Parts: sequence; C-alpha cells; structure tokens
Amino acid sequence: MTYQAPVDDIMQALKASADLDKLTADGTLGVDEDTVRAVIEEAGKFASEVLEPLSKIGDRTGSKLVDGKVVTPPGWKEAYQQFAEGGWSGLQGPEEYGGQHLPAILGIATAELWNASNMGFGLCPLLTHGAIDAIEAQGSDELKKTYLPKMVTGEWTGTMNLTEPHAGSDLAALKTRAVKQADGTYRIFGTKIFITYGEHEMTDNIIHLVLARLPDAPPGTRGISLFLVPKILVNKDGSLGAHNDVICAGVEHKLGIHASPTCVMKYGEKGEGAVGYLVGEENRGLNVMFIMMNAARLAVGVQGVAVADRATQAAIAYAKDRKQGKSATSKDEMVPIIQHADVRRMIMTMKALTQAARMICLVTAKETDVSRRAKDPAVRAAAANRVALLTPIAKAFSTDIGCEVASIGLQIHGGMGFIEETGAAQHYRDARILPIYEGTNGIQAMDLVGRKLPLEGGKVVEGFIRELAATVEDVRRSNRPELGRMADKLGEAVNALAEATRWMGATLQKNPDAAMAGAVPYLRLFGITAGGVFLAKGALAAARGTAVGSPEAAVALARFFAKTQATAANGLKETVMNGADATLALTPDLLAS
Amino acid sequence: MTYQAPVDDIMQALKASADLDKLTADGTLGVDEDTVRAVIEEAGKFASEVLEPLSKIGDRTGSKLVDGKVVTPPGWKEAYQQFAEGGWSGLQGPEEYGGQHLPAILGIATAELWNASNMGFGLCPLLTHGAIDAIEAQGSDELKKTYLPKMVTGEWTGTMNLTEPHAGSDLAALKTRAVKQADGTYRIFGTKIFITYGEHEMTDNIIHLVLARLPDAPPGTRGISLFLVPKILVNKDGSLGAHNDVICAGVEHKLGIHASPTCVMKYGEKGEGAVGYLVGEENRGLNVMFIMMNAARLAVGVQGVAVADRATQAAIAYAKDRKQGKSATSKDEMVPIIQHADVRRMIMTMKALTQAARMICLVTAKETDVSRRAKDPAVRAAAANRVALLTPIAKAFSTDIGCEVASIGLQIHGGMGFIEETGAAQHYRDARILPIYEGTNGIQAMDLVGRKLPLEGGKVVEGFIRELAATVEDVRRSNRPELGRMADKLGEAVNALAEATRWMGATLQKNPDAAMAGAVPYLRLFGITAGGVFLAKGALAAARGTAVGSPEAAVALARFFAKTQATAANGLKETVMNGADATLALTPDLLAS
Repeated sequence: MTYQAPVDDIMQALKASADLDKLTADGTLGVDEDTVRAVIEEAGKFASEVLEPLSKIGDRTGSKLVDGKVVTPPGWKEAYQQFAEGGWSGLQGPEEYGGQHLPAILGIATAELWNASNMGFGLCPLLTHGAIDAIEAQGSDELKKTYLPKMVTGEWTGTMNLTEPHAGSDLAALKTRAVKQADGTYRIFGTKIFITYGEHEMTDNIIHLVLARLPDAPPGTRGISLFLVPKILVNKDGSLGAHNDVICAGVEHKLGIHASPTCVMKYGEKGEGAVGYLVGEENRGLNVMFIMMNAARLAVGVQGVAVADRATQAAIAYAKDRKQGKSATSKDEMVPIIQHADVRRMIMTMKALTQAARMICLVTAKETDVSRRAKDPAVRAAAANRVALLTPIAKAFSTDIGCEVASIGLQIHGGMGFIEETGAAQHYRDARILPIYEGTNGIQAMDLVGRKLPLEGGKVVEGFIRELAATVEDVRRSNRPELGRMADKLGEAVNALAEATRWMGATLQKNPDAAMAGAVPYLRLFGITAGGVFLAKGALAAARGTAVGSPEAAVALARFFAKTQATAANGLKETVMNGADATLALTPDLLAS
Repeated sequence: MTYQAPVDDIMQALKASADLDKLTADGTLGVDEDTVRAVIEEAGKFASEVLEPLSKIGDRTGSKLVDGKVVTPPGWKEAYQQFAEGGWSGLQGPEEYGGQHLPAILGIATAELWNASNMGFGLCPLLTHGAIDAIEAQGSDELKKTYLPKMVTGEWTGTMNLTEPHAGSDLAALKTRAVKQADGTYRIFGTKIFITYGEHEMTDNIIHLVLARLPDAPPGTRGISLFLVPKILVNKDGSLGAHNDVICAGVEHKLGIHASPTCVMKYGEKGEGAVGYLVGEENRGLNVMFIMMNAARLAVGVQGVAVADRATQAAIAYAKDRKQGKSATSKDEMVPIIQHADVRRMIMTMKALTQAARMICLVTAKETDVSRRAKDPAVRAAAANRVALLTPIAKAFSTDIGCEVASIGLQIHGGMGFIEETGAAQHYRDARILPIYEGTNGIQAMDLVGRKLPLEGGKVVEGFIRELAATVEDVRRSNRPELGRMADKLGEAVNALAEATRWMGATLQKNPDAAMAGAVPYLRLFGITAGGVFLAKGALAAARGTAVGSPEAAVALARFFAKTQATAANGLKETVMNGADATLALTPDLLAS
C-alpha cells in the first residue's frame, strides 16, 4: 500500500471552503494558488517516498530507552535530516530566523501529509513547531537569537513539558519547581511525563519548554511560569557546552505511535537543577501556553484527518483487490468487495467524514492566517475569535472521526484487519491517542461550551451559525437538481445547532453541570453541521464547475453527508437539551456502585 | 483492578426482560431462580479468582508457536484444568454425555463472566461448545459416543475450521478437499486460517470440525461437507493412537486477544491426508453449521457485553481514584473525576449500553431455551423464529457497543489509557475482533434485512415490534413520575423502527442494493430501540419494587438511554429510508479514485 497525498482533496477544501481564491488575490496569504499547490505536491512526494516506507518499521521497532539514550527506529535519523534539509521544519517559521513564513493553511496541509504517511514521525516537527511559536511570541531577544535559528532549520528539535503524574488535564496541580539564580537564570527540579520526543539522538540538541512553579508563586494556574531548558547548554558563542541536568528516565509502552518516544523527563536529578531561562513573565507561563494552544490543538485535529485519510486509502486498496461474495445484483461468481453496497457505504462514510474534518481544519487554519496577516485590525480580531471558536471543534471532531474512520478501515479488511501485518490495526492504534492528548475531547467540548460560546456575548458563535445558514440558502437557491434535497437536511442541522446553542447560552450560568453534561454531544452536533455545510459549499462549487478534482465526487460526498450523517443533528440536539437531568440522575456514589 | 461479576445486573436482565419468573415457574427452564443465581455467583468467583488474574499476562505473553507446538501463556493449562474439573465445560452439555443440560440463559450468563475476566481464555470453551453442538445435532452415534463425553467434560477441546485465505465471509469459495476411503472415512487436504485454539497443549486431544469439499461436489455452498478431524486419532477402545496428518503452521500476530492462538492449520501435509469422519450428510455441511451459527453468534454478542462490562468496571475504579480539576459546581481543590459531568455522562453511557446489550443477548438466550424446551411445538417454533430474528442484532449491536464502551473506558483513563500498563488499552484491542469474526457486523445486518425480516412473510419482525410497542404502552400507562417522558422517546423509536422495517420490506425485492446500503444503520436502529425498551421494562419492574439491585439505578439507566441514546432513532430511520441513493451515488470506480 503506497500513500498518495490527497492533493486535489486538499485544494478542493482550500478553494471551496477556505477562501483560497480571495485570500491569494487580496495578498493576505502572501502566496498564489500555484505556489500553494506546488508546496503541497512537493510535501506529498516527501511523505510518500521518505516517510511512508518507515511507518510500519517504526511501529514494529518503536523507540526504546537503551542505557539512558533513546534509540529511534532504523532510518529515523536519516529521514529527519532529509526533512530538515528539505526546509520543511521552517515552513511557517519566521523569516528573520531562516523560516519561510508560509501561511498556516500550508502548515496544516503539510502536517496532514507528514502525519498520514507516518504519525510517529510527524509528531516531532509538530512539537518543535509549537516550541518555536512560544519562543517567538514571548522569548527574550537573546533566547530568540540563540535558539530560533537552529530550531527553525530543524537542526534542533523542541518539546513541550506540561504533564506531571498528578497534573494532566489540571495543570494547576503541577509541582515542578524553578529557583531563581543570581545570574537571572533558573534551576528546574521535577518530573514531567508524556513528553513527546523528550529524548532522541536525531539532533545535537533538544530544547525543552517546561512549565514550573516559583517558590513564592501563587497557587493554581496563576503561579505557573514557562522555562526554556536546553538538553545541552549553549555557550555564548553558540557552541554546545555541558549536558544540562535533565535525563530521560523512561519511555512508555503505548497502544500506538510506537516510534514516537513518550518520555518521562527528570529535571535536577543530579542535585544542582537543570538550567532554565524564563520565557515571558514569571507566573504568566500559562498565558504563553494559551498562545500556542490553539495552533497545537489544530495540529492534532489534522492528525485525525491524516490518519483517517491514510486508513481510507488502505481500505480502498484492499476493497478493490479482495474478492468475496456476489453482489446483490450481479450473478458473477465473486466480485471485489468494493462492489458490495455495505462496503460502498463504509467507504463513502470514511471519505465524507475525512473531507468534512479536513475542511473544518483548513477553515480554522485560514482564520489563523487572517488573524495574523490581514491589514485591518478589526478583521484580524474577528478572525482570532473565529479561530478560538473553531479550534475545539477542529481538534475534537477531527480526532473522533479519525478513530471512527480508522475503525471502519479495519472493518473493511475483515479478519485480516485484526492481523497486525496488514497495517489497518496500526492506524486504529495510532489514532486512539488523538482524542486524548493536547486536551481530551471532553475538555475541548467544555472549552467550546464554557469559554468559546460566551465570546463577545455569544456574537462570535451566532455570526458563524449565520454564515452556515447563508451557505445553506445559497445551495437551496442554486436550484441545481444534482444537489437534491441537501439544503433541507443541512438547514435542519443548522437550526438544531442554533437551538442547542441558545439553550447552552441560557443554561451555562444557571446550571453549569447540565450544560457540561451535554457538551460532547453538542460539539458533535457542531462538527457534523459545520462539516456538512462546508461539504455542501464544495458541492456547489463543483456544480458551478469550479471544483478541483472530480465534481461528481464532491457532489456525491456532500449529498451523502447531508442524508446519512447530518441526519443525526436533531437527535443530538434533543440529547443536549433534554438529556442533562437523566445524565446526572445518579450521584457519583450510586454511579460507582 | 479486580473484576466483580455483575450478578445483580444479570439477574435484573433475566427477571425484568427475559421472563425468568415465568419460565422457572412453568418448568421450561428446569431450574429455579435460586439455582440460576447460585450458578452465576459460582461462575463469578471462578472468573474473578482464577481467570482475571491471568488476563494481563495472557495479553503480554501471548500464545506462541515454538517448534510446531503452541505454547499458551503461563498458568493457562492449570486454569483450563480447573475450569474443566469445575464442570464449567459441560454446563449446557447433554446429560447422557456427562453434561448438566442447564439452559442457554446460564450458558450465556456464564460466557459473559469468562470473557469479561479473560477473553483470550473464554474463546476456548466458546469454540468447544460450538463443536459439541454440531456433533450432538448431526454426528453419528459412534461419533457422539467417542467424542462427546471427552468434550463435554472438557478433557478435549474443539475447534471450528471454516475460513481459508480466499474464503472468509464467502464460504462458497472454499477449496479444502475431502476424499472418501473404502472404510467410510475421508482424507482431508487443505489449509484453514484463523482457527481459534487450533493447536495447544492444554489437553491431550483437539477435535477439529472442518468444512471441506468432495471431489464430485456441486460448486458453491451446496457442495460443502463437514468433517470431524481429531488431532490424535482415537482407537476403538477409546485410547489415543497416532497423530493425525494435521499441523499448526503458524500463529497470527494480532491486535488483541493475544492469549488465544489464532492458527493456520494444514491438513494432509504429509501426503496421506488427515483422517476425517463425516458429520451429517455429504454436501450438507453448511446446514450443520447453520444449526450452530445462531448459538455461536449469540456467544460472540455476549463477548461484546463482557468486554463492555469489564471496561466499565475499570473506568469506574479509575474515575473514583483519579483526582483532577474542580467540578463545575464545587470549590474544592481537586475532586475525583467521577464528579465531573462529562465523566458521569461517559460512565452512564457505558453502563446503559452494556445493560441494554446484555438484555438483548439474554432475551435471545431465553428464546433459545423456549425453542428447545417448551412443550408446545408452536411455542417452540415461534421462539426459534424469534432467535433467528434477534441473533444478528445480539451479535452486531452488542459487539459494536463493546468496542464503543471499551473506547470510552480508555478515554476516561486519559493519557494513562494509552499506556498499555493500565489495561484499558487491552480491552480496546481485544474488543475489536468482535465486530469481525463469526460473520462481520455488515453481514449480520444483511442477514437481518435479507433473511430475517422476510421470515413468515414479515410476521416475525412485526410481532416483535408489536411487543416492544406494548411494553412502551405499559410504561406510559404506569404513569409513574420517576419514569419521566421515557415512554414518549421510546415510542418514537419504536415508530421509527416500524416505519424503517416497512420500508425495508418494500425495498428488498425491488432494489436489494438500496436495502443493503441501509442495513447497518437499520440494525443499529433495531438495537437501540430494543435495548431501550428492555431497559424501560427493567425500570418499570424497579418502579414496581421487583427489580434486582438498585431500583434508582435501573430507572436512571432506562431514562438516560431513552433521552440520550434512543434520540438517534429518527435520524437512523431517515438515513435508512432516504440515504440509499446518496450512498450508492458513486460507482465503485469513482469511489476508488
């Protein structure tokens, strides 16, 4: 099974739902359509030719801790070097530190390709990118000058150190200590877990961003500071010095993404403490984190799209090849299973969910670009609000469907899907981390309901829903017979979303538990509605002859989604609005008995 | 985490939804309620004390092929011997061969416990039981006398050899050859794959049931015969003789159920062929298989319930223990996560889906008992039709929710869920085979739509739906405030099911592909409707003071299911009735591009 970058699908998403034409024309993106396509195609080649062939061996071998060093799978280091040399690390990086400053839509589009071809590899640049963002946003000039050039070129990688054994979703509980020194640096003491690529030998240095607490810090999240802690200390002249007091004490044995070393990191084990440099202000570390959180969550969302697309490609290849059974209508002895109605249903479901989630992610990336690059500050601010609103949906909906699509892919393989050799099981295993890390999907749903719906007194979400409704009206008024009754079903979904949103607005303050009890089904309702409408936008473009790729496919996917997936909208609305009492009927004590 | 048999939940399901009181009173089951409970409690002890402690080591070690022999995990052989000595192998077995002839409800209830505590182990008796059924139903007296006593006592195990590399779901394609000998025996040649416990050293002998084709057999499924092929030939005096010409050529490396050896079996590799004995008539092997298929499918369905229950217990234990975050309403520093509304939603979902599926399985088991044990032939025939109708739902719905619930359980563990050490990932992996083997869930759905709905011209399904509607009416008329508006939501679901059923009846002949395109969502609709109504029956019993266990819990689960799960019914109905065109809009060629 060879991975092919879904260039047309991505371009279709960018053009039909993410305003690519407008934003290239008005100069916001700073690139033209041909460049966008060329970058995606080049990335696709690298993904297919270099990363994909390593995916299975990465899963089988895994990264291992040997004598205190993390050994990555065979071929990993060479692939990483090629990746860095190809300039892929610095795609979105700041130009003054050697990056190409390309827009987020390209960062996200290429992230899909790295993660589809090899998720265990793709995590390394994903984390490095997050670290670069944080340093760029809040680091001192000296930190920027010392670290960013090496990180942007990929010469060094970066990590994010948030989680501790007793502080996972709840960072307020973290205990890692930072002690200020006379020279203005800090010494860091503590244990961090779940640190992706916390240790490896692919590069000369690793730059850890570490959340820690000063001795006199206020309790809770207002007493957390962020520190840059290099694995190897950097001398004034930029040369590498002594090994910092940080070690990898363990690598987790995980369900999936075996190639990506998930490390237990110990800071200050030798006694003197790890040398750290403050990023931003003392006690304001979470604010820095929040800056990058949207980007990181979106990047995880697109990992969901990535694994979904990869699983879909594998399932289609198998379904074309595997002969079994007669079809309901044909008398032939055996037909490829892709001819069976139920297999067709499964593949349509995979494709439609994948493209819907891709569109949600790329629209969120587009809003990121607008929020950073538009000339008008009001436009930037509105887009930033849109990013805030859509990020939890991009993260949670896309990763939920990533797992679902990988599961359908495994199912299409039948018994062979359960055998590891086939590869379908790897996607199923790899995908399962996505609804958990970078904020569980339950937390995304609570973020959506508790923080994002109230933005600007509810006007941000209202504006977005109004736009969805306007798109549905466009589809309806187009009166194109090939679009069928798509607009009716999507109109119902938009109404259901609007109603559930109003209910959330009325409920959040007076009964927060009731609102939170419905947060996950509400987010799903949001995801299928937005995804369905974006697909319909694509279908309308296809009907008007401006689609990339097959117009029949664009129309068919949108109709399928409207008539078989968006049909869940009213039920989800009812669950949200009428289900809270029943959900919370049992006290935790009774629930546990 | 210690596994506790859910005795009350099983008894509640048996009494409230599976007519236990009536069938013990009228003597159909041949046992009284106390015996039923005592057997389940004893089995629960064995499951908790002997099987559960081996589950994790079974997963880690796995069964391996070493020098042609399959080595099961440490402790396996001893546990198996204890299992056999305890009389558990012969629970449902015929009395004349040493069995206890207990009803299927007890076979299914105890199967849940074996598989919940240790699915990799539970598969061995599951398969043996199927082989016993086939031999008992169609074997000659000599075969019965020679093999059944040893199999019923568990001294020997049994296997089912159906699948070949090119014949999975489609048995018509199988190529294993059987050649008749002058002495009336046969010689078997061929390769079978996916043979559960095809080889092991836990017992002195293994009795393989093998589907094969005679040289002059008609093509397709009408030319398949069934043979009994012992691993070790049995002498006239019952002593063991020479090794038959059958070997295990490989053990698959699988996503889950690592302890259960999934074998490649080669018959006739030495040249002379494996000695086999015909079971039933030549060319009628599939008929024998069909006899046992319902039982085997129901047994797999209950594996779904089993893994769901186990995952729920693990998730609850973790959620009581793990402290993280404040609750939306409390100001305490950190609370056990079971206090968070979204975690409560997840646990309610796990519990409600599990109990609904358990009820569906136990109702199907009850109908099995009635079909075998009732005095009135008309009652037996009606029950047999009910078994036929419900079996695909019991298999597919229960195994789908098994995967879903295991996934929710992993999610509740957060990052720890992705670490293999925790055990949540094992349930997630183990569960994933269930929607595939013993007929994929897509095939179950096609069986339901294509073969079961048309039974008796549609009267079988109509009668069942009428009963569901009558139960909803009972709930409504009870006017018990604690049942809330449960009856309204369930009434809508029953109407949706009735409508979709009529549509299927009208569509199946004239457009079979359209019917099959909706078969899977139709089965889901059936499952949530039946499951919701069965739970409501339990709630009504609880409201009337006749529930086993907590009445609050029985009522709460039913309300939760009605208001958050049965809400999907109308959307599923629409998907079935309006989604076929869109599902089949793309030709297989376009779909694959």
